[in-house]
Amino acid sequence: MAKKIAVLLSGCGVYDGSEIYETVLTLLRLDQSGAEYQCIAPNDAMMHVINHMTGEEMSESRNILVEAARLARGNIIDLAEAKQEDFDGLILPGGFGAAKNLCDFAVKGADMSIRQDVIEFVRSFHEALKPVGLMCIAPVMVPQLFGEKSVCTIGTDPSVAEAITAMGGEHQDRAVDDICVDPVNKLVTTPAYMLAGGIFEASKGIFALVDEVLSMIKKYN
Amino acid sequence: MAKKIAVLLSGCGVYDGSEIYETVLTLLRLDQSGAEYQCIAPNDAMMHVINHMTGEEMSESRNILVEAARLARGNIIDLAEAKQEDFDGLILPGGFGAAKNLCDFAVKGADMSIRQDVIEFVRSFHEALKPVGLMCIAPVMVPQLFGEKSVCTIGTDPSVAEAITAMGGEHQDRAVDDICVDPVNKLVTTPAYMLAGGIFEASKGIFALVDEVLSMIKKYN
Repeated sequence: MAKKIAVLLSGCGVYDGSEIYETVLTLLRLDQSGAEYQCIAPNDAMMHVINHMTGEEMSESRNILVEAARLARGNIIDLAEAKQEDFDGLILPGGFGAAKNLCDFAVKGADMSIRQDVIEFVRSFHEALKPVGLMCIAPVMVPQLFGEKSVCTIGTDPSVAEAITAMGGEHQDRAVDDICVDPVNKLVTTPAYMLAGGIFEASKGIFALVDEVLSMIKKYN
Repeated sequence: MAKKIAVLLSGCGVYDGSEIYETVLTLLRLDQSGAEYQCIAPNDAMMHVINHMTGEEMSESRNILVEAARLARGNIIDLAEAKQEDFDGLILPGGFGAAKNLCDFAVKGADMSIRQDVIEFVRSFHEALKPVGLMCIAPVMVPQLFGEKSVCTIGTDPSVAEAITAMGGEHQDRAVDDICVDPVNKLVTTPAYMLAGGIFEASKGIFALVDEVLSMIKKYN
C-alpha cells in the first residue's frame, strides 16, 4: 500500500503563505516516489495579505485554507478535520506563512507561540512515532513541538539559529542541498529558500528531505 | 551565454490564473537546464476570483500581475514593459487564467478574442523566429496567434480540438507525456493538466516541452 503523507500548508505565496516552489517540489517528489499526499490547512484568517510585487501590506483579508487550496488544485482539507491516523508522515513547507499563520515567529521571535491545532496535529505524529519534515523557516517551531534537545536546521542564519537555541532546541548549520536528521525525534529539516538562490538548488534539499521522510517510514513502521 | 526564456503568466491558481504546478515545473526544468527565465504578466484586473475550495466566484477583485507575482517570488515584470529582444523564447503555462485573462476562450469558445498586448508580444517572438511553447488550455490561442494551418495539441478533448479547427488551426491528439511540434512555426504544445492525473505525470510532458523549446534555440539561432 502506498505511503500517505500529510502536507500542512499556511496559504499560497512566499510573503504571507506557504512558499509555492517548496510546496510543489515536495508534492512532485512524493508523487515521483509513489507516495500519496493530502494537503491540509487551518481554516482561519491569514495574519495579513502581502502584495508580492511591492512587498507592501494590502487592505484585504484572506483565509489560510481557501488560499492554500490554490496550491492543492482544490484537493485540501480543513486542519480541524484532519486525522493523524490517516497518514504515515507529515511535511511542513516554509514561506512566511509558516512564521505568520501557523506560529507568530515573524513578529515575536523566540517569544513566539504556535497555533493550538498545529501543536496538537504535529505532536500526534511525534507520539505515533511517525516522521515529520520541516523546511525553510518552519523548523523554528521544532523546539516547542518536539521538546528540549530536538535537533534541526534553518541553514546558516545566526539570528534564527540563536532563537532556536533560546527556545531549547539544538541548531546545526546545513548547506542548501543538505538535510539535518534527528533520529530520536524522527525529524528531518532542510534550509530550502532560507538559502536557495534558485529553484533547482532548492529542489536538491527538498527532494532529500522527502526521500528521508519516506525512508524513515520504511525503516521504522 | 545562458538562454533566457520569457514565461507569460495569467494569475496564480488553476481556476482563475496560471496553473501553479505547470508554472513551477516549467521554471524548475529551465533552471535545471541552465536557462534563465523572467516571469511576465498583464497589469490588469482578473476576469474574476474563484474560491479554490468550493469552485465558486468570490466577491472581490484581484490584479493578474500582482497575483502572478506570487508564482515568481516577486520577480516579475509588467507585460507592457517586456521586450521580446531580451529573450530567446517564450513559454505560456495553462490554467483557466490563460482562457479567462489572456483570452476569453472560457466564455466565448471559438468566438474568442485575445488581449491585444498578448497578441503583439507572442507574435513578436514568432516574427523573430524564436520558439514559443504553450501548455494545457493555452494552445487554444495558437490559430489566432500563428495563423491558419498552425499545428498544436491540447490533448484529446474533442470539443476544444473542434474549436481549434474552427479557428483555422490543426489539432493533433497527444498523450499527457508527449508534445506536439510545429517546426514551421517553431511552436511546441503539450496537454499537461488537460490530461494529467498527477504532478509526476504532468512533469513528463512539461519537461519535454521545455527541452524542445531550448533545443530549438540551439538549432536555429
